[in-house]
Amino acid sequence: MGLFLTIEGVEGAGKTTAKKVVLRWLQERGCEFIETREPGGTPLAEQLRALVLAEHEEQVSDTTELLLMFAARSQNLGERIEPALAAGKVVVCDRFTDATYAYQSGGRGIDEQRIALLEQLVQGDRRPDMTLLLDIDPEAGLARASARGGLDRIEQETVEFFHRVRSVYLQRAGRFTDQYVVIDASQSMADVEQQIVTALQTRLG
Amino acid sequence: MGLFLTIEGVEGAGKTTAKKVVLRWLQERGCEFIETREPGGTPLAEQLRALVLAEHEEQVSDTTELLLMFAARSQNLGERIEPALAAGKVVVCDRFTDATYAYQSGGRGIDEQRIALLEQLVQGDRRPDMTLLLDIDPEAGLARASARGGLDRIEQETVEFFHRVRSVYLQRAGRFTDQYVVIDASQSMADVEQQIVTALQTRLG
Repeated sequence: MGLFLTIEGVEGAGKTTAKKVVLRWLQERGCEFIETREPGGTPLAEQLRALVLAEHEEQVSDTTELLLMFAARSQNLGERIEPALAAGKVVVCDRFTDATYAYQSGGRGIDEQRIALLEQLVQGDRRPDMTLLLDIDPEAGLARASARGGLDRIEQETVEFFHRVRSVYLQRAGRFTDQYVVIDASQSMADVEQQIVTALQTRLG
Repeated sequence: MGLFLTIEGVEGAGKTTAKKVVLRWLQERGCEFIETREPGGTPLAEQLRALVLAEHEEQVSDTTELLLMFAARSQNLGERIEPALAAGKVVVCDRFTDATYAYQSGGRGIDEQRIALLEQLVQGDRRPDMTLLLDIDPEAGLARASARGGLDRIEQETVEFFHRVRSVYLQRAGRFTDQYVVIDASQSMADVEQQIVTALQTRLG
């Protein structure tokens, strides 16, 4: 019943392009799907996204940020993801809990056991069936992202932060091999697209 | 170092009046104090308060509500409560985690172990030194609260909900006797004030 597909990667890795490739592939095969993103996906979760990514006068603590990510996730899961999966649809989600491990544990240094506690509390046994990790050197990704302009609170972190984020993504890809497909996002757009299509055909074909 | 005093009770129990009595008592003794409330207390936490108490088109899940309460709490603790306690001040807080047990576990039926997990994650060992529980029959409290007008999303719950809330408050008062003082809030304002002053003199005098 249903299939839960997530797209992960640091800023500028090409998640938006990857999502378009995935959605086109699903459309061509007549698959029913919904697309969503995290944090976000419902009106309340999008309001939480705006709060968590905005600049604030006060210091937003790592724990506050973590709880807001999971509050938005709880809402997106209950209102959009679980109903779609129960209806047999494919859910394509731009970032999910793997991003929380990468950013809040890798980047911020939060103990990953704290994230695992919240993951269990909010998701129970729900995990993505497939994760496309768009892997790129953070310098190259950030150069692309800042060319787009308007970096948010988290995107303004240091390059070292994004190196730690990438490392956690790659560690998880090595640990959850049934879930992850690593895409070399440093290649040309045509080549990245081909890698994604091959992954979808191999895993879902 | 410092003293953490919280005021708890169902809607219409008279928390605002109780807070005034407490603050006057502290002022008369030249105690340094801050006042705050939950959810809220910092600009970001107040924005979270507005979100969690507002009506939404979507169903706000119990888990989302719980996480938002603790996200606001994390921010209030880090920015206001802990610094004030570290500076030796008295912190007077309108509601704290006891309210989360009463409303989200008693009222909503969330397993209290889930609340205990979040309490540990957000607060570590921090607990109120003293809690004034304004105890009143929920019917009487709700009559007062609705006379004020403008009930929020949670205040619009059923009378049975508030009976469960009151029960958890009373259970906790019986269990944490060093922390709790139960005030009979059904009495006249002068009598309630006298009970509060006596409690403060007995515990802090």
